[in-house]
Amino acid sequence: MEEIKFILDNIWILIATTLVFFMQAGFAMVETGFTRSKNAGNIIMKNLMDFAIGSIMFWIIGYGLMYGKTIGGLIGTPDLFFMKSGDYTSLIFQTVFCATAATIVSGAMAERTKFISYLIYSFFISVIIYPVAGHWIWGGGWLSNLGFHDFAGSTVVHSVGGWCALVGASIIGPRIGKYSKDGKSRAIPGHSLTLGALGVFILWFGWFGFNPGSQLAASSTGDIASISKIFVTTNLAAAISAIVTMIITWVRYKKPDVSMTLNGALAGLVAITAGCAVVTPVGAVFIGTIAGVAIIFGIEFIDKVLKIDDPVGAIGVHGICGALGTICVGLFSADAEVGLGLFYGGGLKQLGVQALGVVSVAGWVISIAFIIFKVVDLTIGLRVNKKEENVGLDIEEHGIESYADFEIKVM
Amino acid sequence: MEEIKFILDNIWILIATTLVFFMQAGFAMVETGFTRSKNAGNIIMKNLMDFAIGSIMFWIIGYGLMYGKTIGGLIGTPDLFFMKSGDYTSLIFQTVFCATAATIVSGAMAERTKFISYLIYSFFISVIIYPVAGHWIWGGGWLSNLGFHDFAGSTVVHSVGGWCALVGASIIGPRIGKYSKDGKSRAIPGHSLTLGALGVFILWFGWFGFNPGSQLAASSTGDIASISKIFVTTNLAAAISAIVTMIITWVRYKKPDVSMTLNGALAGLVAITAGCAVVTPVGAVFIGTIAGVAIIFGIEFIDKVLKIDDPVGAIGVHGICGALGTICVGLFSADAEVGLGLFYGGGLKQLGVQALGVVSVAGWVISIAFIIFKVVDLTIGLRVNKKEENVGLDIEEHGIESYADFEIKVM
Amino acid sequence: MEEIKFILDNIWILIATTLVFFMQAGFAMVETGFTRSKNAGNIIMKNLMDFAIGSIMFWIIGYGLMYGKTIGGLIGTPDLFFMKSGDYTSLIFQTVFCATAATIVSGAMAERTKFISYLIYSFFISVIIYPVAGHWIWGGGWLSNLGFHDFAGSTVVHSVGGWCALVGASIIGPRIGKYSKDGKSRAIPGHSLTLGALGVFILWFGWFGFNPGSQLAASSTGDIASISKIFVTTNLAAAISAIVTMIITWVRYKKPDVSMTLNGALAGLVAITAGCAVVTPVGAVFIGTIAGVAIIFGIEFIDKVLKIDDPVGAIGVHGICGALGTICVGLFSADAEVGLGLFYGGGLKQLGVQALGVVSVAGWVISIAFIIFKVVDLTIGLRVNKKEENVGLDIEEHGIESYADFEIKVM
Repeated sequence: MEEIKFILDNIWILIATTLVFFMQAGFAMVETGFTRSKNAGNIIMKNLMDFAIGSIMFWIIGYGLMYGKTIGGLIGTPDLFFMKSGDYTSLIFQTVFCATAATIVSGAMAERTKFISYLIYSFFISVIIYPVAGHWIWGGGWLSNLGFHDFAGSTVVHSVGGWCALVGASIIGPRIGKYSKDGKSRAIPGHSLTLGALGVFILWFGWFGFNPGSQLAASSTGDIASISKIFVTTNLAAAISAIVTMIITWVRYKKPDVSMTLNGALAGLVAITAGCAVVTPVGAVFIGTIAGVAIIFGIEFIDKVLKIDDPVGAIGVHGICGALGTICVGLFSADAEVGLGLFYGGGLKQLGVQALGVVSVAGWVISIAFIIFKVVDLTIGLRVNKKEENVGLDIEEHGIESYADFEIKVM
Repeated sequence: MEEIKFILDNIWILIATTLVFFMQAGFAMVETGFTRSKNAGNIIMKNLMDFAIGSIMFWIIGYGLMYGKTIGGLIGTPDLFFMKSGDYTSLIFQTVFCATAATIVSGAMAERTKFISYLIYSFFISVIIYPVAGHWIWGGGWLSNLGFHDFAGSTVVHSVGGWCALVGASIIGPRIGKYSKDGKSRAIPGHSLTLGALGVFILWFGWFGFNPGSQLAASSTGDIASISKIFVTTNLAAAISAIVTMIITWVRYKKPDVSMTLNGALAGLVAITAGCAVVTPVGAVFIGTIAGVAIIFGIEFIDKVLKIDDPVGAIGVHGICGALGTICVGLFSADAEVGLGLFYGGGLKQLGVQALGVVSVAGWVISIAFIIFKVVDLTIGLRVNKKEENVGLDIEEHGIESYADFEIKVM
Repeated sequence: MEEIKFILDNIWILIATTLVFFMQAGFAMVETGFTRSKNAGNIIMKNLMDFAIGSIMFWIIGYGLMYGKTIGGLIGTPDLFFMKSGDYTSLIFQTVFCATAATIVSGAMAERTKFISYLIYSFFISVIIYPVAGHWIWGGGWLSNLGFHDFAGSTVVHSVGGWCALVGASIIGPRIGKYSKDGKSRAIPGHSLTLGALGVFILWFGWFGFNPGSQLAASSTGDIASISKIFVTTNLAAAISAIVTMIITWVRYKKPDVSMTLNGALAGLVAITAGCAVVTPVGAVFIGTIAGVAIIFGIEFIDKVLKIDDPVGAIGVHGICGALGTICVGLFSADAEVGLGLFYGGGLKQLGVQALGVVSVAGWVISIAFIIFKVVDLTIGLRVNKKEENVGLDIEEHGIESYADFEIKVM
């Protein structure tokens, strides 16, 4: 019977792994679809390399830094090449989560980042940025000891990627033509809404591995109760967030906006990720609604006030909604073991811990990412030159056209 | 041991849920690929909202109307916000089925329907049209009591969507340019056969959740025997249907037609859905063959005789083949418990019940859909104006171009 | 308890089946994306028909020839229409593997093969070419008796497809314009790198069914240990192969090549398929590295030395890397039961058996494929005429344009 339980747990995690892996395809489609055709091949390469480099580095060192015996609650003890450990199920599951965090950044820095410089960033997120944040929360580090709750990674995965994206996009500056001389933001439409939408559907699909898989077990009635509830809360949050975003764009822009609504669905998914196991379906609808509002004003704030050019809205989706979703656990948790949220009779304690975790992770990621991107910028340079940017990274960096048969407008 | 069986059942249903969810991506790709680029973003939005609105409304009220304690065999007792029930596995599985029915219609009404009007329809199918038909057949209603057999939803899901599509496409009328002045039908080619084909492959993939998942259990040798047979019957029906359709188009049109053959695969999948668990592999090949023939003549009949403009062939695929497949249970069932089909030694009884169910559901759906679409048409209007239709719904309804970088022909 | 184990085994295989099925979508996207838009619909049809015809024929006769009682170790006893057998799980799992082998060829012969002639080949690979090779290795035939080890099909599936592709592409000759008069190879870019990349991600995703599913069981701790290790070795080989390929293209061509790197990932996946269960993660990295080098020089050799025009690189990916990966079992196997590889203390014996298997299968496939393609070529003809090739197979063979809305360059 113990053997059967062991089997059930592992099968569940491995199926979830497979679904989470497929989110790489989702990110690739969203990021290429929402940007211009002249950079499509470049983004594809970045997405592919995020996963490839991440898989290798997380195996060599990242996993140990995240899950090894804690050194003062700050970092784990490395296990080079995973030589001492034997839990391959855990390794592969955590690898695809690491790669998810890594791949968020390519969208925000799209269409102007040097390929080699991007690879250097990609190396460091898998080797140090993500494992440290992950250790604090999931690896037995100081935040987990405080009772911080981030079930499937609104903070660990999404906000880590989101804050890296924020720093990278800030330092590299906006694309040519994004802001007019008087500082007005101009829309630069993507080249394929259908691929972007396909990406969103793939991500939603993959999220049914991401969140329910994070139960990390499927061998008791309680596990199943949790998993099936997570399916429902995850889905409701995404659904309501898409609806809310659509309605707000309809009111504000007079027309229901397609790409913002697609981002709305992702916003709901990111936001529910922290609390999916501890909120009720009604709580999930609240969280999704908050995400659906936040994504619009968040993206507008980043674009129009901060004047940071994030071509696909990754900072808003993963950074802002990741942070909000994590804090929402302190509001909507209906689980006494975790600590009831404010609206379910809990006090401010859990809310405080959630906020502390969000801020600490943001602090860590922004600091280290700032150093990495700055050093790269000052040495080999972060950005392609103007000619390369205008012609497009596909031709300049890779010597190809992604759509060789089609007549392309000069954009 | 009971716990293990409970776990196995639930895991199976949840994996199937995930696959069926992904069919939304398949529908989105088929419907956009088979229509013009100027309306791609609009169709994406309709598909996304079908699922989003459906998820919310089916949770709020639809599930209860379908599965709640029966009121005279006609409708279930609502359980608002799913407050009294606790079976989240069932909720999410049934939600993705409901959304499948809803999303069928957007293809048939593509390229000319007002977005707001479409959302109203989408609301009603999740709230009343689908739950009532579902209650009759799967929720303990009058048809299930008569012995009507529709294992995974040829009638419950596909023909419900198909008949809604029939009514909607009839009332709204053909696209500008579809029929010449003397009434001749003209082909309006879709903008991406590759996306359409991708959609078909995704749907086929999702069907391995749709049909085998409808076993609703995976905890006995009998369940597994049924599930693995369903994999085979589902696959054979789709395969032979695609082949038959291809051959017939080759003979009739001199060349093997790509989009019709892709629809042929879907036709086989829809048709086998009702009987996948009770027919033999040979029976499945017969059903697939019937579907492969029916889809061509069905689509031609709708297009050339009825002069209903269904851009993607949804009425033929889901309506006609859903109905035929359901009736085929009365011909090819090899299962004595269900009632043997005519060709396996059964009498006319099962065939009669199957026909009664098909006709009753068609009657219900066509009546209620007619009222809904007519009321919408007479109040806010169902159709965009001529200018909007000519320019395209993406620009007119959503203010975007789906393929901003590409030179598009004026179509 | 026995029942539970039976259920677990079957569920695992059926989930893997579903994932492997989806690889058909991956192949379709890779093959269309890497070729020209004027032939996209034609390739879609070939992919669809590979699967449809393969499904029917493998059920009618192929499965029995592969797994039926052996006749002298050479071929199995047919079981027409699978009438005597009852193991539908095995049938559907093996069907999707057969279809994978079949579909490899369409890419190598793309853009110039007559549709009807391709269908004839497709019929024969499912009926005889694949079942015979499969019987030798997986069906109890002579190679399996010698101790040949091909866990998930580097040889059985991939090299069978690859050698068929080699023969087909050789006989049919290069596309018009591929080689200049002085014999120099010219690149003919594909029409959508994004669809090609999507295909690669889908294939990688499907490989998590292909390799772990080939354990054919998930009912013991040992099964799970094997399965989870296979996830890791599969993923590492693909990741390192993509990285290595990218680096080499960067050095050789001055720029990191997108489509070659995508093929690099596939090369690693193909190569690890034979040994995924018996090598360590470090061994997997070696195998992936070898594949990443081999794919570049292999594709260049085929293209520039042999002057065989393989538009998508299928011969290199599936033939060369399938063969190399199989031989690598004799180098890197860390499993005493299978026979330790040379680098893990084993002698030359296992290496010799692996080489013998690779050569024998290549001999069988090349001989029989040569006969089939030659007979077709000399009777109904293998190749379309020049006008058809120039105009494109979509219009000439199917009477459609795959991208009717877009302005297409004359290529």
